[in-house]
Amino acid sequence: MTSPLRLGIAGLGTVGTGVVKIIQTHSEMLAVRSGRDITISAVSARSKTRDRGVDLSGYAWEDDPVQLAQRDDVDIFVELMGGEDGPAKAATEAAIAAGKDVITANKAMLAVHGQALAEAAEDMGRALRFEAAVAGGIPVIKALTEGLAGNEITRVLGVMNGTCNYILTRMQDAGLDYQTVFGEAEALGYLEADPTLDVGGIDAGHKLALLASIAFGTKVNFAAMELEGIEKISIEDIEQAADMGYRIKLLGVAQMTGRGLESRMSPCLVPASSPLGQLENATNMVVLQGDAVGQIVLRGAGAGEGPTASAVMSDVMDLARGTRIATFGRPAKDLIDARAAQSAAAAPFYLRLGLTDKPGALAKVAAVLGDAGISIDRMRQYGHSEPSAPVLIVTHKATRSALDEAITAMDGTGVLTAAPVAIRIEEV
Amino acid sequence: MTSPLRLGIAGLGTVGTGVVKIIQTHSEMLAVRSGRDITISAVSARSKTRDRGVDLSGYAWEDDPVQLAQRDDVDIFVELMGGEDGPAKAATEAAIAAGKDVITANKAMLAVHGQALAEAAEDMGRALRFEAAVAGGIPVIKALTEGLAGNEITRVLGVMNGTCNYILTRMQDAGLDYQTVFGEAEALGYLEADPTLDVGGIDAGHKLALLASIAFGTKVNFAAMELEGIEKISIEDIEQAADMGYRIKLLGVAQMTGRGLESRMSPCLVPASSPLGQLENATNMVVLQGDAVGQIVLRGAGAGEGPTASAVMSDVMDLARGTRIATFGRPAKDLIDARAAQSAAAAPFYLRLGLTDKPGALAKVAAVLGDAGISIDRMRQYGHSEPSAPVLIVTHKATRSALDEAITAMDGTGVLTAAPVAIRIEEV
Repeated sequence: MTSPLRLGIAGLGTVGTGVVKIIQTHSEMLAVRSGRDITISAVSARSKTRDRGVDLSGYAWEDDPVQLAQRDDVDIFVELMGGEDGPAKAATEAAIAAGKDVITANKAMLAVHGQALAEAAEDMGRALRFEAAVAGGIPVIKALTEGLAGNEITRVLGVMNGTCNYILTRMQDAGLDYQTVFGEAEALGYLEADPTLDVGGIDAGHKLALLASIAFGTKVNFAAMELEGIEKISIEDIEQAADMGYRIKLLGVAQMTGRGLESRMSPCLVPASSPLGQLENATNMVVLQGDAVGQIVLRGAGAGEGPTASAVMSDVMDLARGTRIATFGRPAKDLIDARAAQSAAAAPFYLRLGLTDKPGALAKVAAVLGDAGISIDRMRQYGHSEPSAPVLIVTHKATRSALDEAITAMDGTGVLTAAPVAIRIEEV
Repeated sequence: MTSPLRLGIAGLGTVGTGVVKIIQTHSEMLAVRSGRDITISAVSARSKTRDRGVDLSGYAWEDDPVQLAQRDDVDIFVELMGGEDGPAKAATEAAIAAGKDVITANKAMLAVHGQALAEAAEDMGRALRFEAAVAGGIPVIKALTEGLAGNEITRVLGVMNGTCNYILTRMQDAGLDYQTVFGEAEALGYLEADPTLDVGGIDAGHKLALLASIAFGTKVNFAAMELEGIEKISIEDIEQAADMGYRIKLLGVAQMTGRGLESRMSPCLVPASSPLGQLENATNMVVLQGDAVGQIVLRGAGAGEGPTASAVMSDVMDLARGTRIATFGRPAKDLIDARAAQSAAAAPFYLRLGLTDKPGALAKVAAVLGDAGISIDRMRQYGHSEPSAPVLIVTHKATRSALDEAITAMDGTGVLTAAPVAIRIEEV
C-alpha cells in the first residue's frame, strides 16, 4: 500500500459533513478499494463551534480556506463552500498554485471560471474534478467523460434542479399555484439563499453548461445559454398540459448544430408517460445521446448529504487510484470557443391563449398561425364563465422564431385578452 | 502526445466490427480526448474473406488469436470472440502472460474464469476490463466500480438480457404465447446459438454475478446463483399480472445479507408503472443501491453493434488515458469467498391456482396459506367455462420456503387441477 491520500476539506455544510462521515465510517473499505488510506488532514468552515454531528477533533482547523489549500499535509483540496467568486475561487486558485489536486462541487464557480481554473490546473499537472457539481449522486460526469468517450455526443438533456422539479410536481399533485408552493419550499429550506439561482434556472443552467463543455469540447459558455425559469409557470398551464398528456419540467437541452452550440434551460412539456415526465420531486434525470451508444438515461438523487458526498468520494477514489483525466475530458487549452446558436430546431409548441368571447376570434388566431406557416395538431376550447375564452393549441413542429412572429401578429388582431403562453414540447 | 496505443482485436462479429468503425471514424476525436492515437495493429476472426463492411487492409491478419495476443505491436488485446473456454480463454491467458492489457466483452468466460484471469493480470501488473460484458452500452461497470466507490453497496438489480425482455414485452403486447414469440425471436436472429443462454437466464446471470463481485467484494460465484429462466412464463400469467397492475420481467437481484450473498436471476412481477415495469423490448436497466447515494437507475441499449462497441471503447479510452483499476474494483486476491445464501428475504408473491370447481376448494387453499402464516393481500377468481376455476392471489410478504411448504400442502388437499404458479413480486 502506498502513502495515504490526505484531504483538506473547506466547507462543512451538508456535503462536507457527508464526506467526513463516509471517510470515517468506511475507511477500511475505501483503503481496500483504492489501495491507499484516505485521510483528512485539516478542515475549514465559517463556524468552528457549530455541532455538525461528526467528530472533527482529529483534524487541524483553518479559519482561512486559502491557508488550508496551501498546507503541506494536504494532497487534495476539497472545495465545498460554494459561491461563484470569493473564498471558494481564492482557495481553489491557491490550491492549484500550490500544486494540489482540487475536487469541487461548485457549479457556479466552474460555469464562470472553469476554463481558467482547468487551464491553471493542467499547467501544473494537477487535476480539477467536479462530479458533485452536476446532478448530485448520479455519476454523470464520469459517464459522459469516460463511459461515452468513444462517442460523438449528439445531445445532452435533463432535469437537473431538484427544487424546481419539486415545485412543479407539488403544484401538479396538490393543484396549488406557484407562489404557494414556492412559499412551502422556502419554509422547508429547499431553496438557495438567493432563490433565483433555483427557480430562475441558473443553477441548472450552470450544470448544463458544464456537461455541454465535455460533450462538445467547447469552452464553458454559460452566458450564451437561453435561460428561462419556472416563475411564470401557472397552475393553469400545469393542469391543461396534464389534460393533454404532458408534464411541465425545467428541462435543459444542449446540442451541437451546423450553426453552433444550442443550449437552453427552460420549462418544457414532455409526455407524461415518458421517463422524464414521470420524474417526481427532487429526483434528477440526465439523458446522454451518442452516435454509437444511442440513448443512455441516468436517474438518481440530485442533491442531499449522502448523494452529493458520494459524488465527491467518486473523485477522491479516482485520484487515490491514480486516475488522471483532463477536467473537461480533453486538455482545457484544446477546448474551442462555442459559437452560440439560437435554438432553431423546430419543435411542437403548447400555446395557451385567452380570446375575447366574440365570433371570429378563434378564426383570426388560426389565420395568423397559418400565415406564419404553423399548423395546428390539436386544439381545445374550454367552457368558461369569464368574458375571456381559454384556448389550448398544440402545434405541429415550428421554429421558435416563427412562433414569436405569430404571437406578435396575434397581438395586432385585438382578440387576445392576455399575453399568450408558449411552451416548447420535447418528445424525448 | 505519447506513443500510439495499439490494439489487437480478436473477433470481428457485430461488436468487433463496431469497434473498428469507431476507431476509423473518430480517430481524431479519440486522440484529442485521450492524448494518444488509438490504432489497430492486427485482427483475427474465423473468416478472413467475409465482407464486414469495413476496410481491414491496413491491419495484419492472424488466423490464430493466441498469436495475435502475443504480437509485439499489440498493447491491448481486445477479446470479442465469446465462449466460456476455447480460443477466447486461451488467447486471453496468452495475452496476459505476454504482458498485455486485456479488454473483453465475454461475460461467460469471466463468470467462470474471471477470478483466475484477474489474478493473473494483476500479478503481471496488467488490466483486465469488461465494461462491454454487462448491459451493453450502459456504463454500469464504471458507475459501480468508480462512480459509487465511496458507497457500501446494498443491492444491485436489473433487467440485463434484452432478448428475454423482448420476448416478454412482445408476448404482452401481441397476446402471443411463449413458443410463438420464441420462434419469432429465433427467426429474427435475436437468440444465441444455444438459446438456453438467453431464455434460461444464464447470460443475464453471468452479468449479475460480475456486478455482485464488484458490489460486494466477493469472488465471482455464478454457480451459487438461484437461476430460473422465462421458458415457463405463460401468456395467462402475463395477462393476469397485467390485470393486477404488474409486468413480468427477468430480474436479477444481488444483495449481501448476514447469512451471505443472495443472488438470483428469475422472472419477477414488478409494478407496471415503475421504471422497470415500463422497460420495453431489448432495453436494459440496472439499479444500484448504495448507503450514501441511495438509488441510481441506469437505462440504455443492452446489446447491438454501436452500444456494445461504445462500451469496449470506454475501456480502450480509460487505458489510453492511463487509468488503472483492479478488475473487480479491488485486488482480485482480496476478494472474499461469497457464502451463498438462499433468498430468505420475504416478498409478496403472485400465485396462480387452478381449483376444482367444487364448493370449499377455495376455503381449503386459503386455510393452507393461513396455516403457513401467509396472508392474502388480494384475490381474484375469474369466470370460467372449464371444470377448473382459475384463482389469482397476491400474498402479503412471505418467504419462498414458507410458500413452497404451502404449495406442497395444497397439493395434498386434492383441490388443485394443475401445479400452482408462484412468482415473486419485487416492489422496486
